[in-house]
Amino acid sequence: MQRATNVTYQAHHVSRNKRGQAVGTRGGFRGCTVWLTGLSGAGKTTVSMALEEHLVCHGIPCYTLDGDNIRQGLNKNLGFSPEDREENIRRIAEVAKLFADAGLVCIASFISPYSRVRFTGIDSEYEKPESPELVLKTDSCSVNECIQQLLDLLQERDIVPVDASYEVKELYVPENKLDLAKADAETLPAVEIGKVDMQWVQVLAEGWATPLNGFMREREYLQCLHFDCLLDGGVINMSVPVVLPVSTADKARLDGCTALALAYGGQRVAILRNPEFYEHRKEERCARQWGTTCREHPYIKMVMESGDWLVGGDLQVLERIYWNDGLDAYRLSPTELRHKFKELNADAVFAFQLRNPVHNGHALLMQDTQRRLVERGYRRPVLLLHPLGGWTKDDDVPLGWRMRQHAAVLEEGVLEPASTIVAIFPSPMMYAGPTEVQWHCRARMVAGVNFYIVGRDPAGMPHPATGTDLYEPSHGAKVLSMAPGLISLEVVPFKVAAYNKVKKAMDFYDPKNHQDYDFISGTRMRKMAREGQNPPDGFMAPKAWAVLKEYYKSLEKE
Amino acid sequence: MQRATNVTYQAHHVSRNKRGQAVGTRGGFRGCTVWLTGLSGAGKTTVSMALEEHLVCHGIPCYTLDGDNIRQGLNKNLGFSPEDREENIRRIAEVAKLFADAGLVCIASFISPYSRVRFTGIDSEYEKPESPELVLKTDSCSVNECIQQLLDLLQERDIVPVDASYEVKELYVPENKLDLAKADAETLPAVEIGKVDMQWVQVLAEGWATPLNGFMREREYLQCLHFDCLLDGGVINMSVPVVLPVSTADKARLDGCTALALAYGGQRVAILRNPEFYEHRKEERCARQWGTTCREHPYIKMVMESGDWLVGGDLQVLERIYWNDGLDAYRLSPTELRHKFKELNADAVFAFQLRNPVHNGHALLMQDTQRRLVERGYRRPVLLLHPLGGWTKDDDVPLGWRMRQHAAVLEEGVLEPASTIVAIFPSPMMYAGPTEVQWHCRARMVAGVNFYIVGRDPAGMPHPATGTDLYEPSHGAKVLSMAPGLISLEVVPFKVAAYNKVKKAMDFYDPKNHQDYDFISGTRMRKMAREGQNPPDGFMAPKAWAVLKEYYKSLEKE
Repeated sequence: MQRATNVTYQAHHVSRNKRGQAVGTRGGFRGCTVWLTGLSGAGKTTVSMALEEHLVCHGIPCYTLDGDNIRQGLNKNLGFSPEDREENIRRIAEVAKLFADAGLVCIASFISPYSRVRFTGIDSEYEKPESPELVLKTDSCSVNECIQQLLDLLQERDIVPVDASYEVKELYVPENKLDLAKADAETLPAVEIGKVDMQWVQVLAEGWATPLNGFMREREYLQCLHFDCLLDGGVINMSVPVVLPVSTADKARLDGCTALALAYGGQRVAILRNPEFYEHRKEERCARQWGTTCREHPYIKMVMESGDWLVGGDLQVLERIYWNDGLDAYRLSPTELRHKFKELNADAVFAFQLRNPVHNGHALLMQDTQRRLVERGYRRPVLLLHPLGGWTKDDDVPLGWRMRQHAAVLEEGVLEPASTIVAIFPSPMMYAGPTEVQWHCRARMVAGVNFYIVGRDPAGMPHPATGTDLYEPSHGAKVLSMAPGLISLEVVPFKVAAYNKVKKAMDFYDPKNHQDYDFISGTRMRKMAREGQNPPDGFMAPKAWAVLKEYYKSLEKE
Repeated sequence: MQRATNVTYQAHHVSRNKRGQAVGTRGGFRGCTVWLTGLSGAGKTTVSMALEEHLVCHGIPCYTLDGDNIRQGLNKNLGFSPEDREENIRRIAEVAKLFADAGLVCIASFISPYSRVRFTGIDSEYEKPESPELVLKTDSCSVNECIQQLLDLLQERDIVPVDASYEVKELYVPENKLDLAKADAETLPAVEIGKVDMQWVQVLAEGWATPLNGFMREREYLQCLHFDCLLDGGVINMSVPVVLPVSTADKARLDGCTALALAYGGQRVAILRNPEFYEHRKEERCARQWGTTCREHPYIKMVMESGDWLVGGDLQVLERIYWNDGLDAYRLSPTELRHKFKELNADAVFAFQLRNPVHNGHALLMQDTQRRLVERGYRRPVLLLHPLGGWTKDDDVPLGWRMRQHAAVLEEGVLEPASTIVAIFPSPMMYAGPTEVQWHCRARMVAGVNFYIVGRDPAGMPHPATGTDLYEPSHGAKVLSMAPGLISLEVVPFKVAAYNKVKKAMDFYDPKNHQDYDFISGTRMRKMAREGQNPPDGFMAPKAWAVLKEYYKSLEKE
């Protein structure tokens, strides 16, 4: 055969990166080839099809090249002689390279007996693979387990961000640079921050707001307020502003500096580099974030009293943040949580966010979610019971008491301790309903959660002026279910649960038996607890109720 | 060669449609092959690369197979004999089928002398093309012109929605069903609507809010309020609620009906099918839409006085809407505008939205945009001067006077009549700044506009309570430039223009020569007009200024 010798390489105008941006919904996505090899009947096709479905459902563009499909088209003029088998694989490999160059994950699934034609990169010379990157034991592992191993591999190689990846971006100064950074911080002009701001520093430092590099700059702030998402480098949900207000005096003093220090309790705790100051248009911010500007709303009140400017920038947090309240051990970062999930060998993690004590209605949601996951085929579902531990309004039960109450719930076996992780979510509470529930969800997504439970009126409260619900109770779940940028997590919405007087247990509300239900409001529950009464049997685990009664008694003593 | 005979087709789990949803950002996107054939030097590679770049920039995933690239990889074992040339093309065709199946637009660019191996569909038998779908005269047409012809073809075949497509969805009853619909409407329970509601009916009927099927249902309303986009079936920008408020009494009367009629001025004008009622939570709606709930804001005032319920549904508008004010000829629908752009053989359409008289600062923006488009290589840029003609606040200049003023501007040659279309945009004005400017832009995108000019403080007004800007003047352009779902249009943001006393003309502000500029505010301009004075030479075309003076004089007579 006369080889083609007088050809030249045509550079494509569209760079691989830019092409990747049109293909798929993730910025900077790059294609690759997943090459599955094994004997007939080993399960290659099953695994490849399942992987393809998983990737597509997670917005990762991909395509499967299957030996049989290829043979009816591209390779229909080949037989099964050794030379033809070799040519068969060679052509497939070349096609796979084209798909990878186009920005897709190409899954190639075939019997490839000759190692010398297996896959090589488009820019590198041919390399004979000495050992497989991954061996899937299809005889002993389930399809889901095989897929998970594949995804882990792709994630480790940073080839493609997959399932629950959104690689956590922590903002701590690396250990080996800490002394230098601390010395640097001492030289910088400083601004004092308060406790709530410090809680946001912890949120940022631990990577809950990945991919934010620090307090929001104006660009991120506007994207957040208007679209509930960050858009640069791929769409990711970010519905609440993570901002640092400063006074006009501080802004005048600090504007133009290339770096400033944040001081808390008299100590420099972080550096903010390349700071950007922009107006804190408080009415507009509150209106867009809360859907009201009512100054009696406890967080809005704080916003209105805060500085008239916002400062964003690249945050470097000097040291891990501890509150020394006996609860720091519960404050697991996203990275630590992911590690814990792996330790427990969880194949599904479902999370429950709360700011209140746990009653059996909450427990019902969690138990039912576990049941549904097991039905779906998951073998080791793990619950992340994740009470919010940042700022809350005056009349919410304080964190310490809530942790005692939650411990009692677990002790009473309402939830299974062996498959439950109790940790504290360090974010302040904003009482911003459908806007905030997205934040609650996306933060857990960063921590590796796969399923997020949402019930009635999440992150809501009574309208301070009218007393009726600030938010329509069904909107939180509705908005969350439609929210963009929550791509690696599934939302689990629930209908209302109430006390069933006949069953003497919490139950999902069935309008057909309306008369069987008793809707025990938070207000009524608090009244009973204050007066030392007991709720109906089955409403709450008794030891947990005892903690609540103790709490309200302690309030009266004050 | 022994042909492979014992193979079976493996059905891919992921349907072509679903795969298309992961690939690219447009719902229901389907792949295809664009097969370019021609002799060496005909310009195939140039055209294919430019097409690829254009598609990628518009979020359409694609990939180019180039004869030379293929020959170094897949087809490196082929030469140039007739059989090898045929095999070369055959393999490329098979690969193109795979790419199309994967959901990409595959551009194949090569010399293919043998018609019998040129492309056929993956599901159909081989067909010999009898004639090319398109002949590109690369010797006499520019690259852009060739690309445009290609895109037109792809659009016509409904293979892929491209550049300015978002196929317009009009909501009129088809002519042949009109009598039946009118008779039906007479039997239905009716609700009276006001003038502003009727303007929204026109907006919906003509397709400006494509793909809305009618007044928003709750799902669309929530997506709009929270994400500024509609998300079902692909992301498209929709930042303002298009909703129909009804009273509690009407809701009680109509809830549960399968269809109702809308009546205006005593006549039934539309049918709303499968209506869905949901709460009109006015404070929250206004807060999220306007960033304020100030009741002195003229549109917010209307909202607060409107019904406590919203009704959404599938709208069927009986007849074209006419206002009989002598201006109906200017009220071109999106479809009619697209037709006009084609008539003028425009290769770029740029739009200017306005609710005020045109002064030379506006003209400067438009002239400069045209200049930049010509520099980019466009030969027939066309300006759509598109004043808003729906409801405006009391102290805005009424539409009729503005049209006279615009006509005078064109007459004086400030803008070129031959390449300018003046039409009326039927939407009400909401004075909602950065939220509304997205609506202004996306509506023109539906009408086929390619470039949208945005200046300082678009759709803004003074805060009714404080007198300062309701919106930060730079935010409109910033937010619009980042807004999702505006994929087939380019935003052209401008810096402020002001009167240059030295040049005696409007000029882009240069802070280095700050003293040369006179910032003539709308207030000052109105004062001069009211008092019969003339502004500095070069501020506004004289005949246009004369119209303004006449208007203000007419006000005083009243």
